[in-house]
Amino acid sequence: MAERAALEELVKLQGERVRGLKQQKASAELIEEEVAKLLKLKAQLGPDESKQKFVLKTPKGTRDYSPRQMAVREKVFDVIIRCFKRHGAEVIDTPVFELKETLTGKYGEDSKLIYDLKDQGGELLSLRYDLTVPFARYLAMNKLNNIKRYHIAKVYRRDNPAMTRGRYREFYQCDFDIAGNFDPMIPDAECLKIMCEILSSLQIGDFLVKVNDRRILDGMFAICGVPDSKFRTICSSVDKLDKMSWEEVKNEMAVLLQTPAQAGEEPLGVGSVAAGGRYDGLVGMFDPKGRKVPCVGLSIGVERIFSIVEQRLEVLEEKVRTTETQVLVASAQKKLLEERLKLVSELWDAGIKAELLYKKNPKLLNQLQYCEEAGIPLVAIIGEQELKDGVIKLRSVTSREEVREQDLKSGQNRDFNIYDGYFIDYWQKWSGTTPFSYKALELNPVSPPLEAAPTRTHRLVFAAFT
Amino acid sequence: MAERAALEELVKLQGERVRGLKQQKASAELIEEEVAKLLKLKAQLGPDESKQKFVLKTPKGTRDYSPRQMAVREKVFDVIIRCFKRHGAEVIDTPVFELKETLTGKYGEDSKLIYDLKDQGGELLSLRYDLTVPFARYLAMNKLNNIKRYHIAKVYRRDNPAMTRGRYREFYQCDFDIAGNFDPMIPDAECLKIMCEILSSLQIGDFLVKVNDRRILDGMFAICGVPDSKFRTICSSVDKLDKMSWEEVKNEMAVLLQTPAQAGEEPLGVGSVAAGGRYDGLVGMFDPKGRKVPCVGLSIGVERIFSIVEQRLEVLEEKVRTTETQVLVASAQKKLLEERLKLVSELWDAGIKAELLYKKNPKLLNQLQYCEEAGIPLVAIIGEQELKDGVIKLRSVTSREEVREQDLKSGQNRDFNIYDGYFIDYWQKWSGTTPFSYKALELNPVSPPLEAAPTRTHRLVFAAFT
Repeated sequence: MAERAALEELVKLQGERVRGLKQQKASAELIEEEVAKLLKLKAQLGPDESKQKFVLKTPKGTRDYSPRQMAVREKVFDVIIRCFKRHGAEVIDTPVFELKETLTGKYGEDSKLIYDLKDQGGELLSLRYDLTVPFARYLAMNKLNNIKRYHIAKVYRRDNPAMTRGRYREFYQCDFDIAGNFDPMIPDAECLKIMCEILSSLQIGDFLVKVNDRRILDGMFAICGVPDSKFRTICSSVDKLDKMSWEEVKNEMAVLLQTPAQAGEEPLGVGSVAAGGRYDGLVGMFDPKGRKVPCVGLSIGVERIFSIVEQRLEVLEEKVRTTETQVLVASAQKKLLEERLKLVSELWDAGIKAELLYKKNPKLLNQLQYCEEAGIPLVAIIGEQELKDGVIKLRSVTSREEVREQDLKSGQNRDFNIYDGYFIDYWQKWSGTTPFSYKALELNPVSPPLEAAPTRTHRLVFAAFT
Repeated sequence: MAERAALEELVKLQGERVRGLKQQKASAELIEEEVAKLLKLKAQLGPDESKQKFVLKTPKGTRDYSPRQMAVREKVFDVIIRCFKRHGAEVIDTPVFELKETLTGKYGEDSKLIYDLKDQGGELLSLRYDLTVPFARYLAMNKLNNIKRYHIAKVYRRDNPAMTRGRYREFYQCDFDIAGNFDPMIPDAECLKIMCEILSSLQIGDFLVKVNDRRILDGMFAICGVPDSKFRTICSSVDKLDKMSWEEVKNEMAVLLQTPAQAGEEPLGVGSVAAGGRYDGLVGMFDPKGRKVPCVGLSIGVERIFSIVEQRLEVLEEKVRTTETQVLVASAQKKLLEERLKLVSELWDAGIKAELLYKKNPKLLNQLQYCEEAGIPLVAIIGEQELKDGVIKLRSVTSREEVREQDLKSGQNRDFNIYDGYFIDYWQKWSGTTPFSYKALELNPVSPPLEAAPTRTHRLVFAAFT
């Protein structure tokens, strides 16, 4: 480090020397010579590794969500949550970590994939591995006998990630579960209904729901001569049929068995995107008195669904808006920052999604360009003429059509087919504290769709000024 | 353990002996004598500590969210997200943990509060301590020069929890930040506007916004003779004025200084619920070339807000619905499970939030009671008479008013003021595959509010059957 500091000092001095010679307009040869010395010193110095050392990345198997990915995520969650609510579910949340012992003995061999927290004094903690065990802990802790709830949250597994196929170490699960003593198969049937409703609504293509009962599989294994001690192991081999070929799975089974079990080899798809089943014994493992609460539920593997939707959007080159801004407040001349701030503030207070550029004197062209890039449909323009006339100009970004107060003098409604996605409902009266008398406008998404011509799904209505 | 097993065996044998004597109707004295021996053995045995050992709890400083708490949380988030979107913000998300070195050197003394993950091979990880450092890492990693984004997520601090006052080790932060080179103070002003809009919309009472510039404080300290090396320490003393009295803070400062600094003692409120400021140097700490991206932002302390709202709801004894179910599908007689399933399924497919009881033959009274407890406003009742007549009966849970097909024969719309919160828009035609001909109904929240009499904010419209 001391050597490096000395070298840095030399580079600095040599730099000053070069600058000095340039200022003194020394001969080109001399300057060239000293510059060459400087470059040599710099090469000797190299990059500062103590500053460069850290890698700029997210941990292995994890990712950030960009605004575009968040737009996809919110759309998918919206479909799922609407379905869960349609089925009368409540919602709960639990901490991201649990006492380590809460997770102990619940996941068999997979326990090695659990993330533990460092022992920094106090309790031993682990990140949740799924949402089912925390749910069972919640039921036992609160002595609940029945609940129908959903829970959407991230879970953590130190697995081998395959991120392009939507397999992460940090990933979302969307769980819906029904706990309680009910007449047989009614809650189970609802879980299947929910799974079908969600997969249909998401429009990600055809899907196949496989229904089974572990007891049938257990019976088959028993007949094939699988010893009890190997049941768990052979089940996880069967599980792999989704990801591996039958040949590979068969080889794995052959190690376990004299006579390999028979099974059909189903065509391979994108893999499973949802799963579920009964877990009647789990809550009892937490209850001090072993009190049982039978449960059935399902889990949607949304990460894989995110991947499918994202890939489709890329193929279609579909533009995804990442904000919901309805109008940009712009100025046509300089020195109108205060007026822009007043108008945008009035719009915000009226519940309108509005923005302005963070520049004192932005060019009109830059403001319009910003709208085009961000997909903002409307610009409200203040200029010197508008201030004089006491109006604002409203402009459609795509059609460039403009409206000023003059156009509204007749008092009649006027229809436009220019403002995608928004329905200007009415103008609110401006408070009158400003030097000019424009009015705040309210923009609402069209709901329900207007019964206009099929090509025209939105309309713009101006109420005349009072 | 071997001793315990022997004792357990003795208890078991003695128990069998007592049962045998009872079966043989032995004399009361003999039975009493043997029961006394049994009790003594059981007392010797004591509780099985190996089975009882684990404690049913969430980790220190964390909590579950019950459905009721989630209802509060969703309402608060809704206000905040609507405001962030109104201001044109995009949204991002980052992993719950970061590389440990990403957090190193960013939090000064508070670094000791960071949760580290256990070294299980691979990267060294820590749970995020706030959303600002991951945001700066995101900007540097993606070489972004400007973005306006919000981020709502849990952060983790191994602090001393004070859960009744909303201080947790796992807690939500709601951050809004503007990154980029802009004209001075315009983004800063928007952050203040956002803070005021959110705190006003939440209706949690009056609030005071304190604006300052650290450079002013630094100047004051310099004049008071605080050495540069003590700046950080004395700043964190000043920070404590929110929680501690001036006397206590003064004593803390006196240890640092000869002449204690002067400061007013402000009246104590519920403490700070939001904070923000500039951090122009942070992104540069991540950028390999030290490229700077000035940033300004704010963070809403929602946990304290949740506490305030929850306490107020408790005081007001306000009923909070934890589901959005609009109608319960019920039956008046036995053996109608299939018909109930068909109707509820039709309702779900029509987008109506509906439930049924998971019993083959539930009593009508129990079904109505369920509606009252869950706050479900409507029951659709199928009975033998209804099946014969080919209709369903729709009943308001609170007013007990009922409507059958007969009432609708006239073909006229009919207004009711009975169904709180919902607007029955129209009946959908039933597919006709069932033995009876009831129709699915669509329930919509009223939007926009009807221009009816002030006492009547909702209305029920029946279209006549075709």
